Amino acid sequence: MRRDHRKPNQSRTISFIPDFTRYAEGSVLSCCGYTKVICNTSVEEGVPRFLRDQQHGWLTAEYSMLPRATHTRGEREVSRGKQNGRSTEIQRLIGRSLRNCIDLSLLKDYTLMIDCDVIQADGGTRTTALNGAIISVIHAIQTLQYKQKIKHDPLKYLLTAFSFGVVDDTVILDLNYEEDSHIDVDCNIVLTEHGDIAEIQGTGEKKPLKQEHLSTMLEMAQQAQPILLKTMRKAINRS
Amino acid sequence: MRRDHRKPNQSRTISFIPDFTRYAEGSVLSCCGYTKVICNTSVEEGVPRFLRDQQHGWLTAEYSMLPRATHTRGEREVSRGKQNGRSTEIQRLIGRSLRNCIDLSLLKDYTLMIDCDVIQADGGTRTTALNGAIISVIHAIQTLQYKQKIKHDPLKYLLTAFSFGVVDDTVILDLNYEEDSHIDVDCNIVLTEHGDIAEIQGTGEKKPLKQEHLSTMLEMAQQAQPILLKTMRKAINRS
Amino acid sequence: MRRDHRKPNQSRTISFIPDFTRYAEGSVLSCCGYTKVICNTSVEEGVPRFLRDQQHGWLTAEYSMLPRATHTRGEREVSRGKQNGRSTEIQRLIGRSLRNCIDLSLLKDYTLMIDCDVIQADGGTRTTALNGAIISVIHAIQTLQYKQKIKHDPLKYLLTAFSFGVVDDTVILDLNYEEDSHIDVDCNIVLTEHGDIAEIQGTGEKKPLKQEHLSTMLEMAQQAQPILLKTMRKAINRS
Amino acid sequence: MRRDHRKPNQSRTISFIPDFTRYAEGSVLSCCGYTKVICNTSVEEGVPRFLRDQQHGWLTAEYSMLPRATHTRGEREVSRGKQNGRSTEIQRLIGRSLRNCIDLSLLKDYTLMIDCDVIQADGGTRTTALNGAIISVIHAIQTLQYKQKIKHDPLKYLLTAFSFGVVDDTVILDLNYEEDSHIDVDCNIVLTEHGDIAEIQGTGEKKPLKQEHLSTMLEMAQQAQPILLKTMRKAINRS
Amino acid sequence: MRRDHRKPNQSRTISFIPDFTRYAEGSVLSCCGYTKVICNTSVEEGVPRFLRDQQHGWLTAEYSMLPRATHTRGEREVSRGKQNGRSTEIQRLIGRSLRNCIDLSLLKDYTLMIDCDVIQADGGTRTTALNGAIISVIHAIQTLQYKQKIKHDPLKYLLTAFSFGVVDDTVILDLNYEEDSHIDVDCNIVLTEHGDIAEIQGTGEKKPLKQEHLSTMLEMAQQAQPILLKTMRKAINRS
Amino acid sequence: MRRDHRKPNQSRTISFIPDFTRYAEGSVLSCCGYTKVICNTSVEEGVPRFLRDQQHGWLTAEYSMLPRATHTRGEREVSRGKQNGRSTEIQRLIGRSLRNCIDLSLLKDYTLMIDCDVIQADGGTRTTALNGAIISVIHAIQTLQYKQKIKHDPLKYLLTAFSFGVVDDTVILDLNYEEDSHIDVDCNIVLTEHGDIAEIQGTGEKKPLKQEHLSTMLEMAQQAQPILLKTMRKAINRS
Repeated sequence: MRRDHRKPNQSRTISFIPDFTRYAEGSVLSCCGYTKVICNTSVEEGVPRFLRDQQHGWLTAEYSMLPRATHTRGEREVSRGKQNGRSTEIQRLIGRSLRNCIDLSLLKDYTLMIDCDVIQADGGTRTTALNGAIISVIHAIQTLQYKQKIKHDPLKYLLTAFSFGVVDDTVILDLNYEEDSHIDVDCNIVLTEHGDIAEIQGTGEKKPLKQEHLSTMLEMAQQAQPILLKTMRKAINRS
Repeated sequence: MRRDHRKPNQSRTISFIPDFTRYAEGSVLSCCGYTKVICNTSVEEGVPRFLRDQQHGWLTAEYSMLPRATHTRGEREVSRGKQNGRSTEIQRLIGRSLRNCIDLSLLKDYTLMIDCDVIQADGGTRTTALNGAIISVIHAIQTLQYKQKIKHDPLKYLLTAFSFGVVDDTVILDLNYEEDSHIDVDCNIVLTEHGDIAEIQGTGEKKPLKQEHLSTMLEMAQQAQPILLKTMRKAINRS
Repeated sequence: MRRDHRKPNQSRTISFIPDFTRYAEGSVLSCCGYTKVICNTSVEEGVPRFLRDQQHGWLTAEYSMLPRATHTRGEREVSRGKQNGRSTEIQRLIGRSLRNCIDLSLLKDYTLMIDCDVIQADGGTRTTALNGAIISVIHAIQTLQYKQKIKHDPLKYLLTAFSFGVVDDTVILDLNYEEDSHIDVDCNIVLTEHGDIAEIQGTGEKKPLKQEHLSTMLEMAQQAQPILLKTMRKAINRS
Repeated sequence: MRRDHRKPNQSRTISFIPDFTRYAEGSVLSCCGYTKVICNTSVEEGVPRFLRDQQHGWLTAEYSMLPRATHTRGEREVSRGKQNGRSTEIQRLIGRSLRNCIDLSLLKDYTLMIDCDVIQADGGTRTTALNGAIISVIHAIQTLQYKQKIKHDPLKYLLTAFSFGVVDDTVILDLNYEEDSHIDVDCNIVLTEHGDIAEIQGTGEKKPLKQEHLSTMLEMAQQAQPILLKTMRKAINRS
Repeated sequence: MRRDHRKPNQSRTISFIPDFTRYAEGSVLSCCGYTKVICNTSVEEGVPRFLRDQQHGWLTAEYSMLPRATHTRGEREVSRGKQNGRSTEIQRLIGRSLRNCIDLSLLKDYTLMIDCDVIQADGGTRTTALNGAIISVIHAIQTLQYKQKIKHDPLKYLLTAFSFGVVDDTVILDLNYEEDSHIDVDCNIVLTEHGDIAEIQGTGEKKPLKQEHLSTMLEMAQQAQPILLKTMRKAINRS
Repeated sequence: MRRDHRKPNQSRTISFIPDFTRYAEGSVLSCCGYTKVICNTSVEEGVPRFLRDQQHGWLTAEYSMLPRATHTRGEREVSRGKQNGRSTEIQRLIGRSLRNCIDLSLLKDYTLMIDCDVIQADGGTRTTALNGAIISVIHAIQTLQYKQKIKHDPLKYLLTAFSFGVVDDTVILDLNYEEDSHIDVDCNIVLTEHGDIAEIQGTGEKKPLKQEHLSTMLEMAQQAQPILLKTMRKAINRS
């Protein structure tokens, strides 16, 4: 039994609050338990140098935490003059995953710039950020289509991100901060809505990850996916 | 008449949402019209070197905007490797003002660290941040007193911050973004609850500020103060 | 009575040494008591991106202190890799004030770049820098006119900067370093030659600023202005 | 068939040149085809603050490429003033993996500092670096034991790192640069010598990764492991 | 007698391993005793702004040490965010010397970018780097000529770099690390193949350098030059 | 004949204005023709880590130029976030030379920190800075002795710095900016008062330096030394 009485394969409540801020083309507050991430997508004209004049769009992401999103205050990244390694790793994960599910060749010369800012962190910030980022990107795309700036929907498929841990030889889904501090293994899996793997990052923290546990995680992800997809689809159709 | 039908001396709706995030000792979402600022106060043990071993606390503030708090996306400060000048100026204003109204000698060796993060910006972010910061600091002080970590209340008096502009020779209170872009003069005034000036920063943007306009601003601030104080006091007494 | 036997409304001796260095289009050593600031104005071709192709000039300022301008050595800003907050605040004040009194639309596509470098600091460096900067800018403008690069004089009016403090409930003008360390309130006022306020920055350091003290400061500034203007005008007409 | 006539499950030649440089406690040139990485392990006294006075060692890694390790010259990281995101990601992978297989509690207060510097890059630099890093760490541990600075061997198990890609629906092992530029899916798997997963990082570049392909990769890794282990063990026993 | 039984005017063994890495247009491992420096020359299209559209090439150099090239590990420069002063000084020396012996006006708009990376340091890294850099540049020039990208050989003359020290009033040639730590005087001399001085940098470390010792150094350099030139010429003609 | 009618071996007028600023323990304005450098020496308690608890002092130097010391404005170093290579090179030269002539073991645990800030640059800034730095250090030492903080005079001998160039096969002493831009060879020589070489830095800019020209420079330096020493000694004995 888990501290908060969840079963191993039980996620915390996930919700997406659309139009969370006014100005971004897509803006979602992504919540998973106490974890809350503002996911803003900005549409910018122009693409990086290596794509110029090719009528091929781009998408990139940035991730950060408010200093006091966590139990104790972390130093503001700009005060140290550089991003910490964890943020770098996460924003690269988010960018890569989203470039996987969006057909950038349909985006003309627009860049989708996604900002994930964690305002409250209770474990699972990277999956919560990624799930919110997808909704936020789709809202931005809807804006582009509504304004007739692009013709075709560049979304190839939805993505769903899940975090897993292994503790006492048991796989558990969606760790909160307290659980996250005590696990042996940490694994994040991003599935397409068709069940393929867009991204997988597994780390043996205290012990290595057994292959059968990896299989369990993939199964659990597939079982948990329909509910998450339903919540996502509701958030996508805002009207 | 102003675009949004306010009278010159009419403020937008101000509200403070207490306990906006879970972990900070004080956490307030400060709202003024569409402007929204998360104001978190962290209590940290220890003080800067110049105060060490003096049983004298410290207070400092940091200010930042989410990249897409504004109409167009601004580059993340950490990406440029340094804070922009405007943020530096504002966080120094907030820190100075709060050190004015808190008796730091009653804080033992605690540091109050205030983080003001603008999530939506429609003008007046520095006054909105400052008003929220005060509430957030008081909540943190209440926590310290409740846990019996300090004995006496270090708050000397409440502060209230107001922004003013001059347009067409008329003084107006509480500019939104659109107004802010067209004014001749910009002035922020921070009054103690007794009507003294904790901080004043006036700038002739297009024209200089006439002395009679400065008098008008001081009067307007005093007229607008009781309502703001009432809202603040309600937010302070959370129970 | 003040330590150096000045009356409350008495300034230290102010002087401007023109042509202090050889190469800048305007170069002034601005002195106020022991405070000495080199104010160099450079005329550069080209303007920032947001003004390009508009035949509209620009003006900006930078401020720094030599490491040993002060009683104890301060770390060189470049060694820390970034400017300190105080310098940022002051150079923004200087830039804003000067953009107020210069009609930039008459400057074609020239940028006036002002460098204020404090070589000796005994209080009042920001007002001393600002007063010197104005003279230095005017000298640079004279150079531009003499070389027939611009037609019309872009100077709208002269500015005069004054520093004030409150100590023992008394307003005093032009604080030296020793006074500056002990005051309750600190206020800098920049007046146009017509008595309007180009910039005002008042801070309650230990106590707030009473409104009647603010009035006294404005009066004192107006009384002290004619002498300063006379010294300035002499420095402007170098011949 | 692959360009260099390898079968899908065929690795390039892997070799480890021990004692590649003179001064590091462990120094290995790790080669995989044309990819060459200098892996130096330094033994330093002292541990990070969070481990102090606990008689518990630490291990961390840094990764970089010489500017001209690649086909075109890349800017030196110090010239931009910060590490690029890819390097950050890789060195975190290396550090995490090695902390997994070393029992840091047996390292007293020593820190093992691993430097992986790529001098020639033809794909697979992160797995080549990781494989070399393990040998280099073990050599450093041997030095510590030989000098009787630690008693027990802290190595829990050997690690073996493999890179995979999917191209034309076929899984291939150990991509060179040219293959790496054209794959649909990219996946790095680090196995313990017992076949558990120390780290897995899979990314759908152009398409997502099918679950059956992931299974194929895990099988291929297990088939390729004995040969790699044999090469490693020979390099470990230098005498 | 020196520790390693060399005579005062005796150099350690010098060798150049050509084509040390695969991708650079010129790549040499320059060895002098235990000191080893990878010298890569990259040919890049384009020149710095001040040379644009003049059909005049450019040459510049960068120098760095692997963290564990030395007896104890040095912090990676990118971790401190900036190059250390010693590296700056050395790379400026290398760049200046090579611009002296190459006729840049014959390089069209190509830039030769030299990277000297020390992988093992036992004294004399700057002279070893410079000697290797010359060979590496010449190889890159051969590549340019072979591909018929430039017509004429821009090499004006060969350079040879020597390091000297004074210890117990005796001049010694080519110091190793241990000697380097105990000398009174340190001097590096770069001679053209005609015996002129391309660069000289002498420093009294513990004592000043006597003029007669400087004369001795110049003589020793001239005596040692033929052997070094022979080794260089062999390395230049790779075939 | 030189443009300003000087003979090849004729220096511009050199002068040292002592007590140029009020607060530094030693403060000299060092002038050579139009070149002017403020040389401030600060006495600080404490030494770098590697000298701690050894009753052995330290000396270090920093060098910078005001942005408009030169004909065209240079970017402020802090704006780029790092020192330029030329400044690094010069301040290392100044520090090394002064550590050569001061017996640091007599300085207890004091650090002498020298700041050379060029306010006007017309060639020869490094030699002008160095000559002024020596006077400034000696003044600081006098202060230490006067306050009885150190017993013995740590000055071993005076240093004199000279700049040379070769133009049209003629050696000239003390180049101004205009000459400096056209020379073939550039050489700075620092002699002790006994004629030994504390530091020599010669660079073939356009052509290499012939050995006979080096001899001429050393002779010229020795001829020019007595006058410079006389001016220095007058500046040292301020009373």
